[in-house]
Amino acid sequence: MPEYRQDPLTGRMVIIAEERADRPHQFDITDTPFQDVCPFCEGNESFTPPETAAFRPVDSPPNTPGWTVRVVPNKYPAVVSGDVPSGLSDQSFIQSGGAAEGIGLHEVIIDTPRHVLSISELTLAEVAAMLSMYRLRLQALKSDSRWAYVQIFKNVGAAAGASLPHSHTQLVAMPFVPRTLMSVAGHAQEEKHCRWCERLEREIESGQRIVETTAHFVVLCPFVSRFAGEIEIYPKYHASGFDKLDASLLDELAGLFRRTILRLEKAVFWMKDPLAYNVILNTEPFRLELAGEKIDFASAFHWHFSILPSLARAAGFEWGTGLHINPLSPEQAAKRLREVFMHCGTS
Amino acid sequence: MPEYRQDPLTGRMVIIAEERADRPHQFDITDTPFQDVCPFCEGNESFTPPETAAFRPVDSPPNTPGWTVRVVPNKYPAVVSGDVPSGLSDQSFIQSGGAAEGIGLHEVIIDTPRHVLSISELTLAEVAAMLSMYRLRLQALKSDSRWAYVQIFKNVGAAAGASLPHSHTQLVAMPFVPRTLMSVAGHAQEEKHCRWCERLEREIESGQRIVETTAHFVVLCPFVSRFAGEIEIYPKYHASGFDKLDASLLDELAGLFRRTILRLEKAVFWMKDPLAYNVILNTEPFRLELAGEKIDFASAFHWHFSILPSLARAAGFEWGTGLHINPLSPEQAAKRLREVFMHCGTS
Repeated sequence: MPEYRQDPLTGRMVIIAEERADRPHQFDITDTPFQDVCPFCEGNESFTPPETAAFRPVDSPPNTPGWTVRVVPNKYPAVVSGDVPSGLSDQSFIQSGGAAEGIGLHEVIIDTPRHVLSISELTLAEVAAMLSMYRLRLQALKSDSRWAYVQIFKNVGAAAGASLPHSHTQLVAMPFVPRTLMSVAGHAQEEKHCRWCERLEREIESGQRIVETTAHFVVLCPFVSRFAGEIEIYPKYHASGFDKLDASLLDELAGLFRRTILRLEKAVFWMKDPLAYNVILNTEPFRLELAGEKIDFASAFHWHFSILPSLARAAGFEWGTGLHINPLSPEQAAKRLREVFMHCGTS
Repeated sequence: MPEYRQDPLTGRMVIIAEERADRPHQFDITDTPFQDVCPFCEGNESFTPPETAAFRPVDSPPNTPGWTVRVVPNKYPAVVSGDVPSGLSDQSFIQSGGAAEGIGLHEVIIDTPRHVLSISELTLAEVAAMLSMYRLRLQALKSDSRWAYVQIFKNVGAAAGASLPHSHTQLVAMPFVPRTLMSVAGHAQEEKHCRWCERLEREIESGQRIVETTAHFVVLCPFVSRFAGEIEIYPKYHASGFDKLDASLLDELAGLFRRTILRLEKAVFWMKDPLAYNVILNTEPFRLELAGEKIDFASAFHWHFSILPSLARAAGFEWGTGLHINPLSPEQAAKRLREVFMHCGTS
C-alpha cells in the first residue's frame, strides 16, 4: 500500500510507492523503443489493465482496437483506490504531518493509437480528442466526493521522466489539495477576484513575454520562469476549471497547443535528441476548506497549462533553497519562440 | 545583471541569470573530461578568477600551486556582489512579489588539487579540510550584514547538474532567507525548542531508518524521503549552525561523510556510470525578522547535510503538485545501506 508522508517541519510531502519500482524502463534497456511490445499501441490492448473510458465507435467493444483515445488504470500506480481516511479531505493531514494511506486514482490517458512520441506528431484532431478526454475525466472525477484535486500531466521523453515513449498523459486524483496550490488558496480566501486576469491583461499589453495569441487563448513565457523556455497557455477570458471548457474551443486550443510544442522543438534545433518536456494542467481544486471556510476557487483561479522543457535539471541549489536558477530570461525565450519560422501556419 | 523574481500567487522564486548560459559543459561536449584544461586542477590557477581564500603553506603566494582547498568566485555567477537593495533583507521582497537585483555571492570551493570526481575518492584529510573550509566561509560571511543565508551545495556528476567533473562545492550567499526555510522559521517563532532533537531521539530508538551512528553523528534516511536513497547526516547533539562546529569533530564527520557516499555508491552496483548526487548543507539562517520580531534559530534549527542520489528526476507530477513520488521507502533504503559490505572499516 502506498503512503502519503508529510514533514511538518519543512512542509515536504511525498508518496512512498514501492510498486512503482517495477514499472518498465523501455528507454533504459534499449535504444530502439520498438524492441518490446508497446502496451499503448492499437492491437495491444491486453497489455494494459481494462479501460476506464475511451473514445471509440458505439459498436466497438472495450479493450479492442478502433479507439482514438483510451484511458486505463496505471499498471504501476503511485496511489491506489479505496476509502479516503479521515484527516485527508479537510487538509488536517497537511497541518498535522505524519502519514496516511496512499488513496487516490492513477490513470493513463493514451493520447493516440499510433506509436508517436510528441504532441507535435499528433494530428490536430488527435490533440483535440486528447484535450476533450482531459475535460471528460475531470468532469467524471469531480462528482466523486473523495477527490479534492486532480493533477493531469505529461512526461515526454526519458529526460522528462517518461518510462514509455508512446505519447500518453497521466492523471492522479487526490483526496487533498497539494501544497503548490495553497498559496493561491490563501489569495482566494482573501479576495474574490482573479489576479491572473489582471496579469494577462498587463502581459498582453506589454507583449514582451507573449509568444502567440489567438481569439480565446494566449501563450507566454511566465515572468517567474523556473526553466529555460518555460511556457504557459491560458484562456484570455476568466475560467477557473478546465472541465468547464466550451467544446467549441477545443480545436482552437488544440492548434495552439501543437503549434507551441512545434515552436519549442524548432527553437532547440541544435539538439541531436528529440526535446523532452513536461506538461502540467493547472486547474481549480474541486473542494477545499480552510478553518471551516469553503474556498471559492471559481472567482480566483485561472486554469493554464505549464510546459517545462527538460534542458537542465534541478540541482543542489534548487533542492536546497527552492529557488530556480534560470539562464534564459522569459523575455529572450519569448522572442526566440516568436521568431521561430513556422511553415505550419495556423494548423 | 541577474534578477531575483518572485510570483506572489504561487510563491515561486527564481534567479534569472543569463550569464550562466556561457558556462562550460565539459560533460556535454566530450566523453573524456580531460580533453579541455581543467580549471580546478593544481597548476591551472590562472584559469579561475583570483582566489578568495585557500588552505596553503604560509610562504605560498595566492593563485599558485601548493594549496589543499581553494575558494574562488564563480566565473559564471548566478548572483553578483553589490549593495543589497532595500526590501530584501527584511523579507518584504518575498511578501510583495516582483523583482530585485540579483545581489549575492557565488563562490566555488575546489575540494582538492587532484582531478577526482566524488567525495569517495578524496582522502580523509581532504574531506576534513573541505568541511573545515565550509565552516570558515560561513564564519566569514556571517559577519557581512548583507547576507541572511548561505547555501552550500555540491552537484556531483552531469546527471546531478554539474558542469565540471573535478570535485568541487558551490556557495551562494543571499540577502534573504529562502522559502524552503520559512516553514522552519514559523516553528522557531512559535516554540523555543528543537523539534529535530526530539525526532533524532525517536529515530535512533526505532533504528529502522538509521544507516550508521558514531559518537557525535547519525546518518539516516528521512521518513519523508523525496528521492530513492535520500540520506541525511545530523549531529546527535543540538547544534544550529555548521559554522560553530567544533574543530575536534571534523575528522569524525569526515570519515562518516566519506563512508556514507561509499555506501551509496556500492549500493547501486548495477549502474555502469558513476552515481551522480547532490549534497546540500542545511544550516541556520544568519538573520531573519518576521513582523518585526527577530527569529531565534539557535534553539530551533539543527544543521544537517542532505544527500540526494540522482537516480530519477522530478517530472510533471512533482512540478505540478510539489509532492515527490518515491519508489523506494526510506526503511528499505536504510536497510540496504546498512547491509552494504564495507571493507574500509571506520576510515
